[in-house]
Amino acid sequence: MTRVFNFSPGPATLPEPVLRQAADEMLDWHGTGMSVMEMSHRGKEFISIHAEAEALLRELLDIPPGYKVLFMQGGAIGENAIVPLNLVGATGKADYVVTGDWSKKSAKEAATYGKVNIAATGEAGKFTAIPKQSDWKLDPGAAYVHICSNETIGGVQYHWTPDTGKVPLVADMSSDILSRPIDVSKYGLIYGGAQKNMGPSGVTVVIVRDDLLGHALPVCPSAFNYKLQAENDSMYNTPPTYAIYILGLVCKYVKERGGMAAMAEHNVAKAKVLYDFLDSSSYFRNSVAKEDRSLMNVPFHLKDPSKDETFLQGAQARGMIQLKGHRSVGGMRASIYNAMPIEGVQALVHFMKEFEKEHG
Amino acid sequence: MTRVFNFSPGPATLPEPVLRQAADEMLDWHGTGMSVMEMSHRGKEFISIHAEAEALLRELLDIPPGYKVLFMQGGAIGENAIVPLNLVGATGKADYVVTGDWSKKSAKEAATYGKVNIAATGEAGKFTAIPKQSDWKLDPGAAYVHICSNETIGGVQYHWTPDTGKVPLVADMSSDILSRPIDVSKYGLIYGGAQKNMGPSGVTVVIVRDDLLGHALPVCPSAFNYKLQAENDSMYNTPPTYAIYILGLVCKYVKERGGMAAMAEHNVAKAKVLYDFLDSSSYFRNSVAKEDRSLMNVPFHLKDPSKDETFLQGAQARGMIQLKGHRSVGGMRASIYNAMPIEGVQALVHFMKEFEKEHG
Repeated sequence: MTRVFNFSPGPATLPEPVLRQAADEMLDWHGTGMSVMEMSHRGKEFISIHAEAEALLRELLDIPPGYKVLFMQGGAIGENAIVPLNLVGATGKADYVVTGDWSKKSAKEAATYGKVNIAATGEAGKFTAIPKQSDWKLDPGAAYVHICSNETIGGVQYHWTPDTGKVPLVADMSSDILSRPIDVSKYGLIYGGAQKNMGPSGVTVVIVRDDLLGHALPVCPSAFNYKLQAENDSMYNTPPTYAIYILGLVCKYVKERGGMAAMAEHNVAKAKVLYDFLDSSSYFRNSVAKEDRSLMNVPFHLKDPSKDETFLQGAQARGMIQLKGHRSVGGMRASIYNAMPIEGVQALVHFMKEFEKEHG
Repeated sequence: MTRVFNFSPGPATLPEPVLRQAADEMLDWHGTGMSVMEMSHRGKEFISIHAEAEALLRELLDIPPGYKVLFMQGGAIGENAIVPLNLVGATGKADYVVTGDWSKKSAKEAATYGKVNIAATGEAGKFTAIPKQSDWKLDPGAAYVHICSNETIGGVQYHWTPDTGKVPLVADMSSDILSRPIDVSKYGLIYGGAQKNMGPSGVTVVIVRDDLLGHALPVCPSAFNYKLQAENDSMYNTPPTYAIYILGLVCKYVKERGGMAAMAEHNVAKAKVLYDFLDSSSYFRNSVAKEDRSLMNVPFHLKDPSKDETFLQGAQARGMIQLKGHRSVGGMRASIYNAMPIEGVQALVHFMKEFEKEHG
């Protein structure tokens, strides 16, 4: 069996030891005679799996008391509605900072549920930089300020935490949660689909400060009501049990490898290999402002776009897949989440050098 | 490794060959060098898995043209809101037939989005029988009539299909879909969480007639808009990929074993073993009207409820788990979905006979 280097933006590569353990335990988890998939979510076995996943996530992200951790369904696109359905009711309006396709989509969906103020947008610069906070037009009466900490399509990432004063900061961290330390206390709410750094698609993590619960609009579906889910330990409806189990295994793996500090070091080192090469190349280029470059998703273009397909085929032949850029920006994109080993990035750069020699 | 007989109401026991295949393919699906969990949902590998799961489901349930099959998130409790969010807009009102806790919950949630008429309810009889259609007070102006085909808590099941004329029939089939043949053409919409007969929790199947698409209320979240999902082949947001893969494996298993007719025969035979014993026993009893008894969930009570815990412990010691009844009805409940072998039911009855001899 040869495992590929999978540069998919998500669902994405997972740590091999996690997959091995999942395979080993598939028919019989810890001598129970059951697969995790077969367990009642009300049984003591799954409750222990759920509790351990939450405890590990709390430990890794150093989540302070006063925050609930919810495991929900619907993904980040679901949360685009679920967040305002739960939070905007406090004042009826919300601020959105638009730094790419994902935060733009979030802002658009929120407008169904309240008054949305675009506090800042990087669209004029084609989303190649994060607008500086000094240029944001924040509304002190907003129920929250929404950002997307990492944009997978444009490849921009916040390397600083906005200060929104008394207005709660809400962050879609789908694509960089668990990749570096964060100061949760600076946020009112953090959410993320699991399928980049945390596990399989189908489970969404919501970390929410207690005082933000209880403002749901009357039209908020019960299954997506944070307060109801918090009161029921995320079991108001049947949770996506197997996805939560894998998320727990990933957290255990990350902890064993040194937690958030080690992940950040690993991710900085990997991204440096790729950006250093891009900056030295006259054939490949990345257009993002250096201070806003994503450590997770690295879009890049070939000097000659007619060679894109040749590049992709060459990469595939060398066991590197899913490098095609998003259709809205074209070119290539290397997604290098936690589980991508540095060897994968080195192999990619090695091939890019070869390719440049031949076609440059 | 000893596998238990798992009588959980859901998530529930799965076919062992499905779990074996999932374990074998965990690190490398069909030589791709990837786990299914790691695949981009936009890649050709996952698209083929998704398409095969849908094709198998269409074949097994004989779904006619003119119906979309959607794989969504949120479960049946999510659908309690998502169904009216998508359908009630046509006329602003809907009929609900209440036959147990699940359909009661559905009706309650729907009232947020439109005018709900309880066309019939079995509550006065403690949900031990399905109200006859001649007693239903249907509203010809309803956007749809909602039923729950099988109630897991009370253990009642429709063994006939209501005739609602021109008003579309909507059925929550979470707990009996894929257990017997159904005439899909008699329904406007069928939905079900996968975690009883189809796979793991976290994926919800929605089978919807084309003409019902396009009536979503403005407050319907995009991720849960049937029309948007239908237009995007259930990939408007990232679908729960691994759960869909397992659902596909379960469908393949069911097909190999003869499809719906064979499943129905198997389920009737299993239920007969248990109900025949219950009817012959003076110690155990099931209170459901014979013609409405569920083939999936068999609640029963001991003559002496103080022995409930002894019974559960004895069953557990013999490798039979999750037999405790729902707290709202007490006693015991054996959930005997497709993947429960007849040997499991025979073992249960064998133990019940022993128990009756000792304690009766």
